[in-house]
Amino acid sequence: MRTNGRGDRELRPLDITPGFIKHADGSALIEMGDTRVICTATLEDRVPPFLRKTGRGWITAEYGMLPSSSPTRIPRESSRGKVGGRTHEIQRLIGRSLRSVADLDCLGERTVWLDCDVIQADGGTRTASITGAYVALCCAMEKWAADKTVPDGLLGDSVAAVSVGVVEGQAVLDLDAGEDNQAQVDMNFVMTGSGKFVEVQGTAEKEPFDAGQLDRLIGLAGAGIQRILEIQQQVLRDRTGP
Amino acid sequence: MRTNGRGDRELRPLDITPGFIKHADGSALIEMGDTRVICTATLEDRVPPFLRKTGRGWITAEYGMLPSSSPTRIPRESSRGKVGGRTHEIQRLIGRSLRSVADLDCLGERTVWLDCDVIQADGGTRTASITGAYVALCCAMEKWAADKTVPDGLLGDSVAAVSVGVVEGQAVLDLDAGEDNQAQVDMNFVMTGSGKFVEVQGTAEKEPFDAGQLDRLIGLAGAGIQRILEIQQQVLRDRTGP
Amino acid sequence: MRTNGRGDRELRPLDITPGFIKHADGSALIEMGDTRVICTATLEDRVPPFLRKTGRGWITAEYGMLPSSSPTRIPRESSRGKVGGRTHEIQRLIGRSLRSVADLDCLGERTVWLDCDVIQADGGTRTASITGAYVALCCAMEKWAADKTVPDGLLGDSVAAVSVGVVEGQAVLDLDAGEDNQAQVDMNFVMTGSGKFVEVQGTAEKEPFDAGQLDRLIGLAGAGIQRILEIQQQVLRDRTGP
Amino acid sequence: MRTNGRGDRELRPLDITPGFIKHADGSALIEMGDTRVICTATLEDRVPPFLRKTGRGWITAEYGMLPSSSPTRIPRESSRGKVGGRTHEIQRLIGRSLRSVADLDCLGERTVWLDCDVIQADGGTRTASITGAYVALCCAMEKWAADKTVPDGLLGDSVAAVSVGVVEGQAVLDLDAGEDNQAQVDMNFVMTGSGKFVEVQGTAEKEPFDAGQLDRLIGLAGAGIQRILEIQQQVLRDRTGP
Amino acid sequence: MRTNGRGDRELRPLDITPGFIKHADGSALIEMGDTRVICTATLEDRVPPFLRKTGRGWITAEYGMLPSSSPTRIPRESSRGKVGGRTHEIQRLIGRSLRSVADLDCLGERTVWLDCDVIQADGGTRTASITGAYVALCCAMEKWAADKTVPDGLLGDSVAAVSVGVVEGQAVLDLDAGEDNQAQVDMNFVMTGSGKFVEVQGTAEKEPFDAGQLDRLIGLAGAGIQRILEIQQQVLRDRTGP
Amino acid sequence: MRTNGRGDRELRPLDITPGFIKHADGSALIEMGDTRVICTATLEDRVPPFLRKTGRGWITAEYGMLPSSSPTRIPRESSRGKVGGRTHEIQRLIGRSLRSVADLDCLGERTVWLDCDVIQADGGTRTASITGAYVALCCAMEKWAADKTVPDGLLGDSVAAVSVGVVEGQAVLDLDAGEDNQAQVDMNFVMTGSGKFVEVQGTAEKEPFDAGQLDRLIGLAGAGIQRILEIQQQVLRDRTGP
Repeated sequence: MRTNGRGDRELRPLDITPGFIKHADGSALIEMGDTRVICTATLEDRVPPFLRKTGRGWITAEYGMLPSSSPTRIPRESSRGKVGGRTHEIQRLIGRSLRSVADLDCLGERTVWLDCDVIQADGGTRTASITGAYVALCCAMEKWAADKTVPDGLLGDSVAAVSVGVVEGQAVLDLDAGEDNQAQVDMNFVMTGSGKFVEVQGTAEKEPFDAGQLDRLIGLAGAGIQRILEIQQQVLRDRTGP
Repeated sequence: MRTNGRGDRELRPLDITPGFIKHADGSALIEMGDTRVICTATLEDRVPPFLRKTGRGWITAEYGMLPSSSPTRIPRESSRGKVGGRTHEIQRLIGRSLRSVADLDCLGERTVWLDCDVIQADGGTRTASITGAYVALCCAMEKWAADKTVPDGLLGDSVAAVSVGVVEGQAVLDLDAGEDNQAQVDMNFVMTGSGKFVEVQGTAEKEPFDAGQLDRLIGLAGAGIQRILEIQQQVLRDRTGP
Repeated sequence: MRTNGRGDRELRPLDITPGFIKHADGSALIEMGDTRVICTATLEDRVPPFLRKTGRGWITAEYGMLPSSSPTRIPRESSRGKVGGRTHEIQRLIGRSLRSVADLDCLGERTVWLDCDVIQADGGTRTASITGAYVALCCAMEKWAADKTVPDGLLGDSVAAVSVGVVEGQAVLDLDAGEDNQAQVDMNFVMTGSGKFVEVQGTAEKEPFDAGQLDRLIGLAGAGIQRILEIQQQVLRDRTGP
Repeated sequence: MRTNGRGDRELRPLDITPGFIKHADGSALIEMGDTRVICTATLEDRVPPFLRKTGRGWITAEYGMLPSSSPTRIPRESSRGKVGGRTHEIQRLIGRSLRSVADLDCLGERTVWLDCDVIQADGGTRTASITGAYVALCCAMEKWAADKTVPDGLLGDSVAAVSVGVVEGQAVLDLDAGEDNQAQVDMNFVMTGSGKFVEVQGTAEKEPFDAGQLDRLIGLAGAGIQRILEIQQQVLRDRTGP
Repeated sequence: MRTNGRGDRELRPLDITPGFIKHADGSALIEMGDTRVICTATLEDRVPPFLRKTGRGWITAEYGMLPSSSPTRIPRESSRGKVGGRTHEIQRLIGRSLRSVADLDCLGERTVWLDCDVIQADGGTRTASITGAYVALCCAMEKWAADKTVPDGLLGDSVAAVSVGVVEGQAVLDLDAGEDNQAQVDMNFVMTGSGKFVEVQGTAEKEPFDAGQLDRLIGLAGAGIQRILEIQQQVLRDRTGP
Repeated sequence: MRTNGRGDRELRPLDITPGFIKHADGSALIEMGDTRVICTATLEDRVPPFLRKTGRGWITAEYGMLPSSSPTRIPRESSRGKVGGRTHEIQRLIGRSLRSVADLDCLGERTVWLDCDVIQADGGTRTASITGAYVALCCAMEKWAADKTVPDGLLGDSVAAVSVGVVEGQAVLDLDAGEDNQAQVDMNFVMTGSGKFVEVQGTAEKEPFDAGQLDRLIGLAGAGIQRILEIQQQVLRDRTGP
């Protein structure tokens, strides 16, 4: 039995508050159970060196955890003077995921910065960041369309993400931190609104898994992401301001 | 005339939400106009080298701004690989302010970390951080008292802070970012519940000021901090959970 | 048609030279087509902080590319003063992969360092590193068993890795750098000698993929890794010295 | 009774040697009691990014302590790889102080670097740095005027600084290191030749102070700075070479 | 008696394999006894700031040791975040040595990067690096001449290096690591094909030496380098591909 | 003809002021022509890791240049966040030189820090640093002997250094910065009071040199160092305080 009587195929309560940060071009607070992430999108008038003089733009992401977001205080990466391996891995994943549904030619030589800052962590922060960053980017797109900064057409599809895993031999959806710590297998899926895969990342540090388990996890993730995509669309339809 | 018709001696709307972050020992979201800061207090079982074997504890602070907290995105200090001068200055100020009302012998050889993370900035983030950190620390103290981690008596007085300045020749209380940018003189005051000064910091980059102006600013700050101290106490009395 | 007339399900020529470096406890040069990686295993008498006083050991990996390993010279990470995100990601992957088949209690409180240094890169350096690191670790284990440093039983299974991808709409095995650059989908698989999955990492930056494609790639990788595991065993049986 | 029988309102012996360093545009060795600081001014033909294309210049300061300047050797910040919080705070203070009396339009798009290097520390190094930097800058201005690099009019007023504090309940002027360590309140004042305030920084880590004490410290600082400004002018009148 | 019955004036077996790395413009693996270094030369289309707009080029070197090249694993400089003093010293020496026989005007505003990576260390890695870098650079020059990137005439002379030292009171040539550790005096010589000195570096940490010993070491080095220069030329004449 | 009519075998005016810095255990200001270096010696109660539990001590040196010591301002290494290659090379040289005449067993497990800070540079800063550090260390030794911190016998011989070079075809002693910039050959010698060599470092970036020139430079350096050693002894005999 999972915490709060949740079923194996059940998501935690998911809330998305668009427009949470006043100064960003687009923003959203995403809350998935006790995991809370502030996602913002801002535009910068230049691109990384490898894109100069190509007319194309770039989407990049940065991810951070506030020191007190975790039960044990996490030392600040700024104080330690460097960004850790896990952070690098996550921000690369978020960037790739959003680029997979974007037409970078639309941007011209500009960069979209997606900042995902975890203010409270209870498992699934990287997948919540992707889901929330998509909403923040949609909000920003509307603002850019209104002030004619970026033409329509930047996003060709929607994108969302979820974690799945094998806990006590059972395949379950949307692991919280407690489940994550005891999972034999931990997988993250990123999928598009049209039901295709963007990222598949599975790790079995405790116990290698077989093809049957892999199949079950793929199925579970697909259904979960479907539900998340619906909530994203609902939130975007319902919001009023930027 | 100030923005929103505010009077020269008037604070912006001030809201403090204690218990905003689940994992911290104590926490508060402080909102002063459009400035919003998450403040948390956590305890670590060791002290800086200069306090080892003294039986005394320490209170230290870290301060950060989310990249999108400002109208122009601020590059992450973790990505730049170092903490900037302004950040250093602010976190030293917060630490000193809270230590000024604390009895560090109460802590034993432990360190209180006060994390102040600005999620939205509109002027006065350092003074809001001090005011909010005091509330977060009070919440944490109650938790530590309940689980007998730290004995009562850590805080001997309350502490709060405010900014004042001279804008267009006029002394005003609690500057927002727009006023801050055009101020001739900018001062920050930190004062205790018993009406004494802890920190006085005034800077006149645009126009040196005379003794009369200094007097007026001191008076303005004293009245403003008095009001903030009352709100702090109200919030602490009203809250229910940790 | 692939370079050199290679079939879609065909590996590049694979050579492994154990004992390539004199000073390491175990070592191997792995050459997979034009990709060449020096892998070594050495033992250190301490563990990371989180394992102190647990009696358990750790296996960690570091990965580097010589500046001239790539057609365009890569600036040294030591000169740039930091390890990049891609490097972090790869060394975390290598470490997890080898730990998945190891019994860390065997080590006592010691750390195995697996160093994988690419002297020539032509695609698949991370998977070659895993395959080669396994051979280096087997060589080291024999030395440690001989001088009674580490008891038998550290490795419970073998492990190897391969890349697969979709190139011009076709699923192919073991991509070289040219194919990698134009792949729509790029996946890395790590599997054990008993045919189970340890890591599954798929990325579709250019074009999301569907469930059918995912199935075909899983099959292709399984067959390829099977062949690599056989070559590993052959090499380990044939070698003479340490 | 203070060390050497000094009165509460008495400065330590103050010596300023202009032209101490041959290669700088302007320089001074300032000796205030046992505190000795080398101050230099040099000109660079560019400005920080935020001033490009504005036609305005900048004045910035750097501050350092030689490792042996202090009774306990201070590790070099270059070896530690970063500039500490205290250093940042001081160099920002020196820069602001000198900018407060300067007309940056005079410089064109150029930067004045003020380097203040403490070769021996006995309290008051930051205030001595400001006082000495003013003399170094005056020397440099004369050189620049002579070779027509910078037009006259850069400095509209003079500037000097002093520390005051409450030691054993008594307000005293110009604290040495021994007094600084036991002070209940420590304040630094920066004032102009016309008697106005540029910076007011007071800290009460040990014991908050009341309005009466603040008044007395303000008075003490004003009189002390008056005397320092006279010595600066005397030194500048008396010097012969650059 | 030396290891392997080597005479005092005898070099260790010396092998140079040109063309060892496919992607570099020129490369060589140099093996001097158990010391093995990969040397490569690549061209970059820009120069350091001090050479911009001069029409002249630059030759610079970087040196590294793989972690397992040494009997005790060497922590990676990239992980430590900085290049150590010894590394700096060696790469400056290699750069100066090769520049001493080059006509930098030939290069135009381009930089030659010489990368010397030690894969196995047994003494004399810096002198082997110089000797090998010369061969790598000759190979690169031929390639650049063929594709008309750099005109002939870059190298006006050849250059090679060797170590000598006083071990147990005896002057010996080409020290291995065991001899190096017990040497009273350790010298490195770099000389040209025409028999002139480029670098002379002698250190007597254990026991200062007199003029007679200095003379003997100079003679020993001269004869050794003569032999190395012959082998270099032989290798360059014999090689077939780039 | 050299600047100021100096002969080829003539030193610049050499002044050494012992006891220049109050807080150091020993100190000296050395002035060699316009080159001025502050040298200090301090003792620390620990040793580098490789000497722990050996009962032996260590002597290490750090070298720095004040930003304005040079005609063109040198950016601070603390601001750049790392120590440059030249600095590393020089501080290693100073450390080795002083260790060559010291008996490290005398120190017990303690480290002597020699700090050499160039306040004005006009050529020969590294050799002046060695010469001055010896005087500073002698002063410190006397203090340590007096308070019984370190027993007599730490220094078995004296040590001093000088630069020589070939300028316009002529071998000359003690180059100033102008000569250094145009020298074909630049050598630094470190020798003991008993006339033996400790360090010999010659570089011919502009023009390789032959054995005859090497001989002449060796002779010139020997005579120059002889004179410097006499001045050191004179200064040490004449001084009064610590």
